Amino acid sequence: MAGYTKSLKKLIEAFGKLPGIGSRTAERLAYHILKSSREEAMELAYAIRDVKKNIRHCSICFNIAESDTCEICSDPGRNGSIICVVEDHKDLLALEATNEYNGHYHVLMGHIAPLESTGPENLTIDKLIERVKKYAVKEIILATNPNVEGDMTAFHIAKLLKSTRVKITRLARGVAVGSSLEYSNKAVLADAITGRTEI
Amino acid sequence: MAGYTKSLKKLIEAFGKLPGIGSRTAERLAYHILKSSREEAMELAYAIRDVKKNIRHCSICFNIAESDTCEICSDPGRNGSIICVVEDHKDLLALEATNEYNGHYHVLMGHIAPLESTGPENLTIDKLIERVKKYAVKEIILATNPNVEGDMTAFHIAKLLKSTRVKITRLARGVAVGSSLEYSNKAVLADAITGRTEI
Repeated sequence: MAGYTKSLKKLIEAFGKLPGIGSRTAERLAYHILKSSREEAMELAYAIRDVKKNIRHCSICFNIAESDTCEICSDPGRNGSIICVVEDHKDLLALEATNEYNGHYHVLMGHIAPLESTGPENLTIDKLIERVKKYAVKEIILATNPNVEGDMTAFHIAKLLKSTRVKITRLARGVAVGSSLEYSNKAVLADAITGRTEI
Repeated sequence: MAGYTKSLKKLIEAFGKLPGIGSRTAERLAYHILKSSREEAMELAYAIRDVKKNIRHCSICFNIAESDTCEICSDPGRNGSIICVVEDHKDLLALEATNEYNGHYHVLMGHIAPLESTGPENLTIDKLIERVKKYAVKEIILATNPNVEGDMTAFHIAKLLKSTRVKITRLARGVAVGSSLEYSNKAVLADAITGRTEI
């Protein structure tokens, strides 16, 4: 890379390590930083620093937080007697975007996956059991992903919670709104038939 | 954006301001930073800081540099009696990649564009004239882009240099009119350097 300076080379390399950023894009982004004002460029540098410095996990639910407890756990307007269990913070975001749910969450930080040697001990399941035993939790919604690993994880948690007599539910399964029967796969349609509800 | 923390929101916004980065990509990049190690994340933050701190313009040719003069101007192996005049540092890079040229450069920092009210006084043309008068320059290669603004800029410089009796050449029209140097392939650029003609 003749004609580049050392700092520019390093910046191109650093951008190139981001997911989905190829070498041409990395070069373009580095040039943008080179040409933009110091304030504009440092805004990104400071934002990166602040995310690494300020963000931790909520001590209750493992959602991301900037203080000991996250925005949701510390919101008095939310119903703490229902806990929705999700695999990842992104799943929490997707559910929040529906505006349909006003309870608390519990982020497992993954799912049980024997092939990736992720067992229950690598997740926050023990903390969930603790929460259920310690607080007046009435319902646990198991909102793990509707696939083999998610189901396995949900089943494991349901088994552990059996003795607590808390109500355990899972997300409804069926055909997705906006999809068509013709293109839905067999498993989806089987779920939809089995779980049919009365109108 | 419920469920995001303040720092994460800011980082998504900062990534979103980069050219060609949409809101979904900005979110994905911010998540990558959130999940990666502190060292990995700070590598990018420090690289941005260093580019803004260390990079300046070469006091001779206006190429980017990390000291008073750039790598090319301070390289004793390069022929200082030929100066290749380019609009932008990216054009210099494209020419360097051909390995066909061993002289010096002069970066104009733009082109004459009356419609954007960029006149000769906004470019580094006066510094180029100074260089030609001060040093034993034998040849000036006008390697502005092969389009209206580039030609106008080259013509203006050629006129100013007429009295100095330095040899003035321009790139052979191997490069396609209407294209730009940055995106021309190496072979085309190599042809253009080799076949340069006197104005």
